[in-house]
Amino acid sequence: MPKISAKGRMMPESPIRKLVPYAEAAKQRGVKVYHLNIGQPDIQTPDVALEALHNFSDKVIEYSHSAGIPSYRKKLAEYYKKHNIHITADDIIVGAGASEAILFAFQSIMDPDDEVIIPEPFYANYNGFAINAGVRVKPIYSSIETGFALPPIAEFEKSITPKTKAILVCNPNNPTGYLYSKEELETLRQLVLKHDLYLIADEVYREFCYDGIKHYSCMHLEGIENNVILIDSVSKRYSACGVRIGCMISKNKELMKTALKFAQARLSPPSLGQVVAEAAINTPDSYFVEVLNEYLARRDVVVKAINNIPGAFCPEPKGAFYVVAKLPIDDSDKFCQWLLDSFEHEMQTVMLAPASGFYSTPGRGKDEVRISYVLNVNDLSKSMEALAQALLVYPGKTN
Amino acid sequence: MPKISAKGRMMPESPIRKLVPYAEAAKQRGVKVYHLNIGQPDIQTPDVALEALHNFSDKVIEYSHSAGIPSYRKKLAEYYKKHNIHITADDIIVGAGASEAILFAFQSIMDPDDEVIIPEPFYANYNGFAINAGVRVKPIYSSIETGFALPPIAEFEKSITPKTKAILVCNPNNPTGYLYSKEELETLRQLVLKHDLYLIADEVYREFCYDGIKHYSCMHLEGIENNVILIDSVSKRYSACGVRIGCMISKNKELMKTALKFAQARLSPPSLGQVVAEAAINTPDSYFVEVLNEYLARRDVVVKAINNIPGAFCPEPKGAFYVVAKLPIDDSDKFCQWLLDSFEHEMQTVMLAPASGFYSTPGRGKDEVRISYVLNVNDLSKSMEALAQALLVYPGKTN
Repeated sequence: MPKISAKGRMMPESPIRKLVPYAEAAKQRGVKVYHLNIGQPDIQTPDVALEALHNFSDKVIEYSHSAGIPSYRKKLAEYYKKHNIHITADDIIVGAGASEAILFAFQSIMDPDDEVIIPEPFYANYNGFAINAGVRVKPIYSSIETGFALPPIAEFEKSITPKTKAILVCNPNNPTGYLYSKEELETLRQLVLKHDLYLIADEVYREFCYDGIKHYSCMHLEGIENNVILIDSVSKRYSACGVRIGCMISKNKELMKTALKFAQARLSPPSLGQVVAEAAINTPDSYFVEVLNEYLARRDVVVKAINNIPGAFCPEPKGAFYVVAKLPIDDSDKFCQWLLDSFEHEMQTVMLAPASGFYSTPGRGKDEVRISYVLNVNDLSKSMEALAQALLVYPGKTN
Repeated sequence: MPKISAKGRMMPESPIRKLVPYAEAAKQRGVKVYHLNIGQPDIQTPDVALEALHNFSDKVIEYSHSAGIPSYRKKLAEYYKKHNIHITADDIIVGAGASEAILFAFQSIMDPDDEVIIPEPFYANYNGFAINAGVRVKPIYSSIETGFALPPIAEFEKSITPKTKAILVCNPNNPTGYLYSKEELETLRQLVLKHDLYLIADEVYREFCYDGIKHYSCMHLEGIENNVILIDSVSKRYSACGVRIGCMISKNKELMKTALKFAQARLSPPSLGQVVAEAAINTPDSYFVEVLNEYLARRDVVVKAINNIPGAFCPEPKGAFYVVAKLPIDDSDKFCQWLLDSFEHEMQTVMLAPASGFYSTPGRGKDEVRISYVLNVNDLSKSMEALAQALLVYPGKTN
């Protein structure tokens, strides 16, 4: 039997996916499982986007331009202008989700064994993309005690080697919900300038900022136009994860010319998703007001509930729709499995993401979980009640 | 300014894309350009597929399973059964086009500097995927004189090294239209068994076989279930290139488990495309009868016209919708550009693909072009007339 690649063997299996069979078994037993483990929102896709699909009138579903449908990219530029981000259609390459956009970025700027620095905990799939591109993630520890703020710049300096090509931040952050401040981004600006690095910012949760705090984009940083790569997606913005439309944006012409070659090799991003995404730009502001209020109410339910549990703690995140919570538990992988295979409260339980999967340093995140507040307030309250009950009886409790 | 990756610098720019500005300029001058340079058919997507889009009733466009929507994969297995290919839904991973499926395959079986043997001329983007995955393409020459038949097995044997991990064939072939026989595939079967290699077969043109010859799939080969990887796509089958739905199929469980990890890292293939592709499986047979007759008529127009041009020659391909033609010219890159920037016949000209882009051995394909017969018979006739006229006056003519 021919062999599997070393790369393939290295690819991590997500700790969440390992739990799926346990969730299935729980459902088989008649237990209601609240899914707080994923970033698939229950919010409706805007009508204007769905209508574009129903009214699709082409007779042939054709390839689009490799960089994306020109009219869509033009309209995207207008969307960004509203967010005070000034780019043109030529600065955009549309990808099959932010996933493909990140891969294009990694491949265009890094060679095997090059390094990208990422504050941890971080979105687990960055690991997969790094292995895919043959590069190394150098994690820098951000702690729950500081609410997952940007680690001190000295920590970055210590991690930079001649192999370092980029710093990647997710802002607002998945999994922590942390929203980086203008000042934090300014320190990164100076760092990338000093060491001639790329700054990759994954800003797919831009719309989800709370408590009146405004999002500060990497594209607002001045004087590092050739260093900045913005990664974006319409998945969360319009609750349309299945369209698989994201993009990579940069003013660095040489970089974009290179990324376009990777884009051309796969011919075209999904055409139908682009049609939906283009129409979605006309989503009325009222949609976002409503969605934001909904997420805010959900956040408050979760944060309050967690901090009411003895021995548990979570910061109040200012963005995205995730909370990383510290729980009085021995091992979050074990705990999350136990919730599914050995626990129920009034025939209900909850599926959470063990935080271990968001750290690349072994051993970290053992007493932390990520909670995605992607269910309505009522279901969330029931989930939090089940979690509180679970922590009263979990055998691996640490306090 | 931070640097571009070596990989990025190595990525080839397609010779076709270099011609695009010349085609634009010709149109600006009022010249009608017949596009025979691409694989974007003008055939209509089946109604049943478009209707699925119009009737899409979900309120949230959600991620699908990373391997593809289960109901779609189940139905795909039925589609293959009709083609005497016996697989289950679990043997399938749906990708964003055959492009992503090939990448999954390359990444799962090869590490940097590993080698894949491909008969040339071959689909130019295989080069891009290889560079992307950090692996090397070892071309084996197949010649127009044999109609682009499989090169002798001795040639393969000569090219196999300890780094060789796979042999890739495209069947029916893009760019040559060659349809591999059962006997040719049998010789490959013995070869991959002997050297413990993977056999990757890109069969996206399965439906397009002419003159009553039946397609013989790599999945029909016995005793090499763990070696065979089938790459497929709905792009050409249903003239729906923009849905970006392809797949990778193998009975090798370890391989599929590995490929799934790459699939999970990018979360989901396009959901909307899968909805369309699933509905398309209900396309009535009459659609294919009509389409096949249409392509056959087109092929005949092109083959006859080429072989009527003094000094030109092309084999009669038995599959796909491409012809590689040998022309009495000095340099196909120059000629294809000249057609666009210095020639018109009755205010018409033709855009062709220089065959140089389909060979990885430098210097090959200089007197060959690929003609995609993706236009109707009337337009094709006019294109062939323009081409014949062009060859009367081209300054770089060699006979």
